[in-house]
Amino acid sequence: MTGAVKHRHDNATALELAAIGLALITILSVWKLKQFKYKLLNETGGAMFYGMLMGLTVRYLSPAQGEHGDDVATMCSCGGLNSTPHILTVNITSHFHSYRHTAKVSQRYPPVSIHHTENFDPEVLFNLFLPPIIFHGAYTLNQKRFIENLGSILSFAFLGTIISCMTIGACVYGFTRLMVLLGQAADGDFFLTDCLMFGAIISATDPVSVLGLLSDLRVDVDLHTLLFGESVLNDAVAIVLTHAITTYSQMGAGHSFNPPAFFLSVGHFLGVLAGSFLLGFIVTVITALLTKFTRLCENPLLETSVFFLLSWSSFLSAEAVGLSGIVAVLFCGLSQARYTIHNLSSVGRTRTKQLFEVFNFLGEIFIFGYMGYILLTFPHHVFKAFFIFGAFLSIIISRACNIYPLSFLLNLGRTTKIPRNFQHFMMFAGLRGAVALNLAARDTSTEVKRTILTTTLLLVGFTIWVLGTTADPMLRCLDIRMGVDADENPEDLSFEVATGRPDTNRSLWHCLDYKYLKPLLTHCGPPLTDSLPQWCGVFSRLFGRVQVQEDEELCEIEPDDSTFIHLEKTEDQVESKRSDSGSEHQEDLLEGDLGLGTAAALPMEA
Amino acid sequence: MTGAVKHRHDNATALELAAIGLALITILSVWKLKQFKYKLLNETGGAMFYGMLMGLTVRYLSPAQGEHGDDVATMCSCGGLNSTPHILTVNITSHFHSYRHTAKVSQRYPPVSIHHTENFDPEVLFNLFLPPIIFHGAYTLNQKRFIENLGSILSFAFLGTIISCMTIGACVYGFTRLMVLLGQAADGDFFLTDCLMFGAIISATDPVSVLGLLSDLRVDVDLHTLLFGESVLNDAVAIVLTHAITTYSQMGAGHSFNPPAFFLSVGHFLGVLAGSFLLGFIVTVITALLTKFTRLCENPLLETSVFFLLSWSSFLSAEAVGLSGIVAVLFCGLSQARYTIHNLSSVGRTRTKQLFEVFNFLGEIFIFGYMGYILLTFPHHVFKAFFIFGAFLSIIISRACNIYPLSFLLNLGRTTKIPRNFQHFMMFAGLRGAVALNLAARDTSTEVKRTILTTTLLLVGFTIWVLGTTADPMLRCLDIRMGVDADENPEDLSFEVATGRPDTNRSLWHCLDYKYLKPLLTHCGPPLTDSLPQWCGVFSRLFGRVQVQEDEELCEIEPDDSTFIHLEKTEDQVESKRSDSGSEHQEDLLEGDLGLGTAAALPMEA
Repeated sequence: MTGAVKHRHDNATALELAAIGLALITILSVWKLKQFKYKLLNETGGAMFYGMLMGLTVRYLSPAQGEHGDDVATMCSCGGLNSTPHILTVNITSHFHSYRHTAKVSQRYPPVSIHHTENFDPEVLFNLFLPPIIFHGAYTLNQKRFIENLGSILSFAFLGTIISCMTIGACVYGFTRLMVLLGQAADGDFFLTDCLMFGAIISATDPVSVLGLLSDLRVDVDLHTLLFGESVLNDAVAIVLTHAITTYSQMGAGHSFNPPAFFLSVGHFLGVLAGSFLLGFIVTVITALLTKFTRLCENPLLETSVFFLLSWSSFLSAEAVGLSGIVAVLFCGLSQARYTIHNLSSVGRTRTKQLFEVFNFLGEIFIFGYMGYILLTFPHHVFKAFFIFGAFLSIIISRACNIYPLSFLLNLGRTTKIPRNFQHFMMFAGLRGAVALNLAARDTSTEVKRTILTTTLLLVGFTIWVLGTTADPMLRCLDIRMGVDADENPEDLSFEVATGRPDTNRSLWHCLDYKYLKPLLTHCGPPLTDSLPQWCGVFSRLFGRVQVQEDEELCEIEPDDSTFIHLEKTEDQVESKRSDSGSEHQEDLLEGDLGLGTAAALPMEA
Repeated sequence: MTGAVKHRHDNATALELAAIGLALITILSVWKLKQFKYKLLNETGGAMFYGMLMGLTVRYLSPAQGEHGDDVATMCSCGGLNSTPHILTVNITSHFHSYRHTAKVSQRYPPVSIHHTENFDPEVLFNLFLPPIIFHGAYTLNQKRFIENLGSILSFAFLGTIISCMTIGACVYGFTRLMVLLGQAADGDFFLTDCLMFGAIISATDPVSVLGLLSDLRVDVDLHTLLFGESVLNDAVAIVLTHAITTYSQMGAGHSFNPPAFFLSVGHFLGVLAGSFLLGFIVTVITALLTKFTRLCENPLLETSVFFLLSWSSFLSAEAVGLSGIVAVLFCGLSQARYTIHNLSSVGRTRTKQLFEVFNFLGEIFIFGYMGYILLTFPHHVFKAFFIFGAFLSIIISRACNIYPLSFLLNLGRTTKIPRNFQHFMMFAGLRGAVALNLAARDTSTEVKRTILTTTLLLVGFTIWVLGTTADPMLRCLDIRMGVDADENPEDLSFEVATGRPDTNRSLWHCLDYKYLKPLLTHCGPPLTDSLPQWCGVFSRLFGRVQVQEDEELCEIEPDDSTFIHLEKTEDQVESKRSDSGSEHQEDLLEGDLGLGTAAALPMEA
């Protein structure tokens, strides 16, 4: 081993040891704090804090940062965030991977000098840890609650994120105009598309930290479901919005409104969303059929491995065909929890959840630790006070424009409304995190992009610490009950959710889900032979439910409502919000058992 | 993204999808075969087979392999095994990491042309998956059985591996001389050190495949323990031997015997072995104290994460200080299973085992699949018929020289001998695998080294398939009982192991382990206040056992014998093998409970 290489190798190993040390300190100190009933700081905040400490140390221990290719500071000064094409060299003993940076602009830039080529690439972290985190979020959603609140969640996630993106874009654009007037920026530095891009990036509220927050405080179950469901789904919307805006601006349509480019990017938005959804669902279908028609469940290890590999492949396949891996893995997680989980053995169920739980926990710590770290070590930060101030202001405004009007509209369709104090807390709990940083870090080729990155980092830090730590007092002063057991039954809820919807028998989705998908993919639901016409006899006998004995036992384990019924219903509901839905709610609770086999359901089929 | 980069990105993603597909096919087909009671092929063999199929496909689908920097074939044609210094570029979305190859000889070689720079580095695979595999092997050893057979296991692992290395080295050297005479090789192509190096590399029998073999066939428990224990420990010896021989030959002492270099490398051997052992043990001490004195066990997720991170850090720390990470992680696993496991909650115990089980299972499949793959795609194979033939012959001879004489010597000291048929099967079951390939792949800078790699690959394939698949009939014709429940109690054993040893009260290790380490690191054993002199009062009260209530429950869970007692005893035993040990065996069984708390043990202290 040559001296330089050896030195780099040692640095990389030392660096990873430091990362493990950071994770350990975070885990232990946060856990100790929680023992002292100090609930304000959770792992994400702790990790970010220690990451900043580490960054500070490295910064001051290595003043020559950036001069030497193989000093620790440079090795991890976030090479992926460099504007210049370069190679990250990594000793795999220490998981620092090398990666040829693929900035679109690479040709425009001069070849990079050697001292920029030894860096740690954040993509590694995101591609390694973000998929399991997102999958875990979707997979562990309380399905019944999620679906009971699906209408509101989808509205907040889809409409809300678009509103938020537009508002932030507009506000920030206003501020950039002001900067130009005040001579803080040259005209043409910031295009509207850049501002909208920033809006899309920063609109993704973070399921990791939100979940951390909510589970620690154990807030009201429906508030929990609304916030967590929104934060999980709006990542998908934000990611795809960012893609779409990139497509738009790539068509050189940054300066003036360009209808074709606009419609193309809208098409791109819908295409990527639908495509990723479909891909995630296809992977679920494969997994479900595999676990239904083989006796894999006799061997939990095989079961877990197959489940893990297939779920992971949804991310890869999406990336391979140019869709969004994260979105695919998100929908895969949702549908795996809807269908495949019925085919797993109880041991397999536990093991899959525990496996992803560990990935999620460690990934969260590493990602947030890294965020804190690059906040202090990334050599190309661009701090623009006005822009940052404008961003801070705009996320508050946008959150308000998102939550209050939508809650008002939703309440029109709900028998029991979303109370004011819930709305205030939802307005308050818009924590940003990993997905926002990931989106911001993807392209830092221009000063504007680096300004966005710096601002995003600051906003993440602010929301995680300030909002995260003041959540507990906030909840008290809003008089929202905490310490709730998530598993308490619907009757005990502080408020009941009722969603106006048409008669289920006319619902296409209900038929599709209950009469076809469930019997096809799981051992639940009515026999396919009943659902399908005569001439599909062979097919229905082939894919129909088998081992009826174990079905009931299997299906009874997850009393969750039918996603697709409600998907459809809620879309209807957004239009027709005025339908009285007291009776539907009873029906809803009954329907809640549709997934539980034929007994409860068949009467409704009549 | 530029076209070329995009293409490479897609290839990398496609490649990882292929890897996942390969793993899935392996898992499902092998599992299906096993359902049909076809026990001959296990995952390792299956993975290697499908890896070869994949290699074949890639080879013929991409005739231009090596011409284009970014075609799949080249991307994974085992760049790390190139003799020329180069960079492996990898899209992290697909875990293929880039790694600056650090061949000592890099300077001697011309700068590599671009089409060599896009490769997948096996180091990634080994550094990512080998540590968990080895840790899992050590962590899940049946401690009681392991220690009952420790004398024999240590003899086979240490003496046996050294004998094997020497024998293979001598035989192969003979063959290379013959090759020179027959004009198959130039004089000076193969030095004795090269042959000894090959001997060391190929002496490592593979715990993964051996375990796969044994658990599938569920052979006699003690045969299982002997074989598995040997295969786990001899990896350590083989790795360190290889290091030592490298040190020796690096001192330019390849041609003639060089006493200083020899003694230095012997020192290096002992130093690395002891150092790695110590480091692994230190990590265990930290983990044990952490889990003993905090209430981490109340949160299994934290417990598991901390355990995982610390165990992983043993590998990194060893690599950082220039010791052998694999050896450190091996000893860490052994000692974690000895001490820390007592402090874990039962849930934590299960989760840690299951976590490493999954890593182990998937890692095994990926590594063996990759082996099969490079066997057909590595562009720099050097097939030397004579050398390969010599190697095949020599591993058979060396295995015989290892097993039979040692069994004879050991039987002198055992009341119940290792039967002939067991010896035959042990002779037969010397499967080679991941560690051997890892050692062979570390340096392929010269033609000799590449010859060694090629031969190693062929030997691995041969032992995995031929020996692996004929193990079942072999066991039948040797009349060794199968289908044994591993947990059956010692009384039911087909043969009892008894180790001659001195009175335990005089054993330094026994005191250290039972009287000091156990009470210090776990909640078991006698209070430190009893063991330590008066003046250590503060210390003993500080580190002494706490929560006596839960001790008993905790300690009763793992009825394992005291490692260090037996370590010591067995070393004595190797000298004094003739002592009658019928009574000692009773003592052994009693001692077997030393780990279980004070009750059974205190009488013996009197």
